[in-house]
Amino acid sequence: MDLSSFLTSVLTSFVIFVVLVLVFTWLSRRPGNAPVYYPNVLLRGLDPWEGRRRGTRSPVGWIQDAIAASEDDVIAAGGIDAAVYLVFLSSVLSILVYSGIVLLPVLLPVAGTDHGLEASIGIDSPNKSAQSSQDFSAMDRLTMGNVGEKSERLWAFLLSVYWVSFVTYFVLWKSYKHVSNLRATARSTPDVKPEEFAVLVRDVPKPSADETIKDSVDSYFRALHPSTYYRSLVVTDHTKADKIYQKIEGHKQKIARAEAVYANSKTESNPEGTKPTHKTGFLGIIGKKVDTIEYCSEQIKELLPKLEAEQKTTLRDKQQRSAIVFFNSRSAAASASQTLHAQVFDKWTVMEAPEPCQIIWPNLPRSIYERQIRQAVVYTIVFLVVFFYMIPITAISAVTTLENLRQKLPFLKVVVDQKIIKTILEAYLPQIALIVFLALLPTLLMFLSKAEGIPSQSHAVRAASGKYFYFIVFNVFLVYTLGQTLFKSLTTIINHPAEIVNMLGNSLPGAATFFLTFVALKFFVGYGLELSRLVPLIIFHLKRKYLCKTEDEVRAAWAPGDLGYNTRVPNDMLIVTLVLCYSVIAPLIIPFGVAYFALGWLIAKNQVLRVYVPNYESNGRMWPHMHTRVIVALLVYQITMFGYIPLKKFYYSPILLPLIAMTILFAYICHLRFYPAFAKTPLEVAQHELKETPNMEAIYTAYIPQCLKPDKLEDLDVFEDCQSHSTSRAPSI
Amino acid sequence: MDLSSFLTSVLTSFVIFVVLVLVFTWLSRRPGNAPVYYPNVLLRGLDPWEGRRRGTRSPVGWIQDAIAASEDDVIAAGGIDAAVYLVFLSSVLSILVYSGIVLLPVLLPVAGTDHGLEASIGIDSPNKSAQSSQDFSAMDRLTMGNVGEKSERLWAFLLSVYWVSFVTYFVLWKSYKHVSNLRATARSTPDVKPEEFAVLVRDVPKPSADETIKDSVDSYFRALHPSTYYRSLVVTDHTKADKIYQKIEGHKQKIARAEAVYANSKTESNPEGTKPTHKTGFLGIIGKKVDTIEYCSEQIKELLPKLEAEQKTTLRDKQQRSAIVFFNSRSAAASASQTLHAQVFDKWTVMEAPEPCQIIWPNLPRSIYERQIRQAVVYTIVFLVVFFYMIPITAISAVTTLENLRQKLPFLKVVVDQKIIKTILEAYLPQIALIVFLALLPTLLMFLSKAEGIPSQSHAVRAASGKYFYFIVFNVFLVYTLGQTLFKSLTTIINHPAEIVNMLGNSLPGAATFFLTFVALKFFVGYGLELSRLVPLIIFHLKRKYLCKTEDEVRAAWAPGDLGYNTRVPNDMLIVTLVLCYSVIAPLIIPFGVAYFALGWLIAKNQVLRVYVPNYESNGRMWPHMHTRVIVALLVYQITMFGYIPLKKFYYSPILLPLIAMTILFAYICHLRFYPAFAKTPLEVAQHELKETPNMEAIYTAYIPQCLKPDKLEDLDVFEDCQSHSTSRAPSI
Repeated sequence: MDLSSFLTSVLTSFVIFVVLVLVFTWLSRRPGNAPVYYPNVLLRGLDPWEGRRRGTRSPVGWIQDAIAASEDDVIAAGGIDAAVYLVFLSSVLSILVYSGIVLLPVLLPVAGTDHGLEASIGIDSPNKSAQSSQDFSAMDRLTMGNVGEKSERLWAFLLSVYWVSFVTYFVLWKSYKHVSNLRATARSTPDVKPEEFAVLVRDVPKPSADETIKDSVDSYFRALHPSTYYRSLVVTDHTKADKIYQKIEGHKQKIARAEAVYANSKTESNPEGTKPTHKTGFLGIIGKKVDTIEYCSEQIKELLPKLEAEQKTTLRDKQQRSAIVFFNSRSAAASASQTLHAQVFDKWTVMEAPEPCQIIWPNLPRSIYERQIRQAVVYTIVFLVVFFYMIPITAISAVTTLENLRQKLPFLKVVVDQKIIKTILEAYLPQIALIVFLALLPTLLMFLSKAEGIPSQSHAVRAASGKYFYFIVFNVFLVYTLGQTLFKSLTTIINHPAEIVNMLGNSLPGAATFFLTFVALKFFVGYGLELSRLVPLIIFHLKRKYLCKTEDEVRAAWAPGDLGYNTRVPNDMLIVTLVLCYSVIAPLIIPFGVAYFALGWLIAKNQVLRVYVPNYESNGRMWPHMHTRVIVALLVYQITMFGYIPLKKFYYSPILLPLIAMTILFAYICHLRFYPAFAKTPLEVAQHELKETPNMEAIYTAYIPQCLKPDKLEDLDVFEDCQSHSTSRAPSI
Repeated sequence: MDLSSFLTSVLTSFVIFVVLVLVFTWLSRRPGNAPVYYPNVLLRGLDPWEGRRRGTRSPVGWIQDAIAASEDDVIAAGGIDAAVYLVFLSSVLSILVYSGIVLLPVLLPVAGTDHGLEASIGIDSPNKSAQSSQDFSAMDRLTMGNVGEKSERLWAFLLSVYWVSFVTYFVLWKSYKHVSNLRATARSTPDVKPEEFAVLVRDVPKPSADETIKDSVDSYFRALHPSTYYRSLVVTDHTKADKIYQKIEGHKQKIARAEAVYANSKTESNPEGTKPTHKTGFLGIIGKKVDTIEYCSEQIKELLPKLEAEQKTTLRDKQQRSAIVFFNSRSAAASASQTLHAQVFDKWTVMEAPEPCQIIWPNLPRSIYERQIRQAVVYTIVFLVVFFYMIPITAISAVTTLENLRQKLPFLKVVVDQKIIKTILEAYLPQIALIVFLALLPTLLMFLSKAEGIPSQSHAVRAASGKYFYFIVFNVFLVYTLGQTLFKSLTTIINHPAEIVNMLGNSLPGAATFFLTFVALKFFVGYGLELSRLVPLIIFHLKRKYLCKTEDEVRAAWAPGDLGYNTRVPNDMLIVTLVLCYSVIAPLIIPFGVAYFALGWLIAKNQVLRVYVPNYESNGRMWPHMHTRVIVALLVYQITMFGYIPLKKFYYSPILLPLIAMTILFAYICHLRFYPAFAKTPLEVAQHELKETPNMEAIYTAYIPQCLKPDKLEDLDVFEDCQSHSTSRAPSI
């Protein structure tokens, strides 16, 4: 890619970005759009424009707001997880800024004033050497590719790798410390959180014939924690009860909607209004026509006793071999969750309880062996997906350079020059396949992660994010570079097989320009769309106009969702990997990386403060994953450099080996020092005083699934009795 | 090695064994030898001959006794660790018996009736084929080496690998379960054991200026465990106090000895006796002559106040950043030892406390980073020792086949044929080096393991045993086989480099005979010496006659020591590895293995019941290590077979791959299922009722180092006060 086309591409992206920002500025000022641009603020019951007059007036007001907001504001709006995500973005930003400060002024002149590219062409084909200088764009001149073989200048590049690595260690260490404190602070707040009083118990052994699972859990934990045990909640298979419950809820919604429609229909001309009706058959198209309100009310009346009966059956007969056990203090629960209970490990496994809202109920009763097997199967599938997905990607990488292909293999001209075939080949088929597959991938990975038997939503998100990271780094980064190289050098390889190593080396700086454009495109267009929220805006307005009848429906139409860490984090990680890997080979990528993460931080902060609403709170458990993956990126970078520098016939690259060892050591020390406090709750933290005496009843109720909750809270004891043998069924024996 | 020399070797070993057993039978009946043959019994205060009349009369009485003793007897005499060691021996015995039952009747005929050896020679040199049959001994005929290439018979060998593996899984699983129960039973006995009420705390952070370490430990643990915390004991640097204490003890011993000598000197001719004297200078050779009793008493009088002063200083000013914290119940201690205490992992590390008798005090205050660094350094050293020790071993392996060398490289004849050089080369130099090095090795490995910073003796023994295992397997098993091959085939390799793979394959069955002799020698002679205890017997009698004057000194002369797991277990493991690896290649090794472990079990049981006295009790924590290493041996075996079978041009060996995967899976499942109960104390187990209310004072005192113990126990509070600022030093501030 030459300079002009590169500039065109970057400029186009930039123009799109500016337009989108302007659109955002204009649209976000209109009060009607508040639910799209300020849903988080609205949900917290605040006025989006209060105290923000300045912000809405100037087009850069949102920037000022975002910068002015403190970390506490962020935590208040989006929780610790969002704050940790911002710490991640700012950490990467610092790494790149510190690296750039040294690398740009040092490496650009060193590379730009050498003549390696001309020399290499000169050697390959001496007769071309005179005209060769114009073959290389200014871009390529500024890369390491322009440094001659065996040149002393390579020392500068070698030492730069050290600088970048040390900067990374320094920033990561500081950030880990910061996040660790954030987590500790969050976990020691005086607020009562149900999950801090509970422990999740899995692999409950089969009870003896005359007791229920509930009985055995109760007696076991009462014996082991006589003074701190409060009560237990056995997990039940409530799919059937839930189905009935959902039906009732559906009917309730229909009634609300019908009533709204009915009220609207009372116009002046028709003061009575028309009662809404619908057909009872398939999709409301066939079947008997009924009055919606009456019909639904009847249905609910019919279903309610059914639900009650099913609730009883579920609680009594559908107990699963898993339970949530409550303790009367935080430190008792923290200590219990970390203590081995049974002599044999496949019984009475205990772990920290997830938040009630993020429990994946069907996964709880899976036995330890089932979990292991599922994990092995899922990992195998993911491995296959990651590795064999390179086949279509390589094909795409080949087709995008169709012009190259045509040049190198002239016999293809007959096919390729036919216009229809060319168009289809070049533009449609593979891209569509790629886009469809890539769009489905996060869902697939999320599904696979849940299939592993993970008990909580946030854990599944972390697992899916990890899978996506390895997928994206392997496929985009490695395969693209390799694919490019293989095609570029197809003819060379055929003639001189020994040239392949050189070719690989030469293609690394070449791919740099591609990735530069990629980063630019990604952040200008991606962030523009993210900030302007055009798609949610359109959907919201369409829904509100044509579909929503009740207040609840409108609220559902603008429900903002959370940040979607499972795709967001791996995408950022890809950029980290790219920028780090090319930081020394083509230092020009650093400013782009800085722009990406600076803008990313700004926009993410804006979105966290105003738009997204977290689904769960994991108190920053995402951080160790982010940390590990930055280190993986650093390792990929160091290994790339270790392999690349010798291609310049510069034999000091083993100097990089201690650096690789150091990175592994750094990762190990961080893991040793900080990780346990993320995996477990330290007693120190759990010990902090509470604001009020915890209402244990409320903590317990928080974990009862919606469909099993009795109507009145006084009925809780009945609920309890239903689960255990001793009181409800003992007399019948 | 041909049949006759093999038989000679085995028979010689057997004769030595029989003689040693007869010697043992004769010597052990003499009451004067009781301290050598029944020290354990004596120490437990029992009469060695009581109820054992039968045993001492018949020469096989000890065998009957050993077989009749139940596991409970073993535990009573030698603790859980000894019982676990016997379980290990009997497990390996079962594995070999079950394997032998199938492998011997199947594989011996299959191998014996083929003609692979003749065929292979036939191919190499067709003119020799007629006379070749006598070149192969009956031994070699019964190995896999005698099966022809591509023969269908190889299926039998292939499937035998499966049989041996399944037998191993089965036996190991049952044994792990058994040992796990043994441990659980031992840990839930109603006896009060100090270590079950204590927790070892390391990495205590630097306290603030106005408090001692003791204060900070107290306040920290009191806050986190308000209802269960009892008190704490801060580790001090008591080397100086200990030196003074040892001096006093030395003087006391001298006095006792001098008094005994003095009493003995009062003969009829000299009713006054002569007071023993000694010189005060270097080694008692130079210096002033003094009356021993008077001098030592004076010394003690001088030292006692010094000791007291030093004790105070130690307790107050030499506190180290480590402590032992006591809880008032077993489950509280168990739970505390498993719970993460601090937000940052390099502070307040907690773990289960070791028994008081086996604490390695100097290692306790080492910080987590120091431990890590030490571990890394130690591992590097061990790695170097394991790998570069092969150089002398290969040399030895070469010299033992000096005759071979002389044949193959005729130019050496000039040197080798000189008688003196030959004798020295063949018999002395390398063997002596080997023996010296091998004898020093366990001590070196034990020293290295302690240098890692391990807090307890038993843990250090396990670590040393692991290192020795890898050393011995790598050096004896792998290097010997390779060394043999390399020398045998030196000329072939020079002429036909491609032959090397075949040579390696052919040498495997050849080495089998060597290892057969090795196993036989090891068990007949080794066990004979072990049983007859000739060396301790001689030392004891010599000491008693010429050195010991007091009762205490006699007692010290026969102090039996423990089983020495750090060398015993790896040596057994080497035999396991050898027998497993050759079980299919040369099935004749199985009966020898059976004999080794049957005799080993018998003799070890006898020694445990009558001789050895355990130094510590780790409740079978050695078992997971033994288990893992049997699995390592199984893996080495499977991989060897996977590599060896294709050498027979039999291409179904990938059928063994699932087996290797299965072994890894088996190891993983066992680890998952059983290991946690070995690494931690399950609450279930800690919860068991105690016989009596624990005397917390006594538990606390058990951990005070001998040299710091106050004379009277009532002074304990002074001891306590000395350590903490608040009471003893606060007024002075």
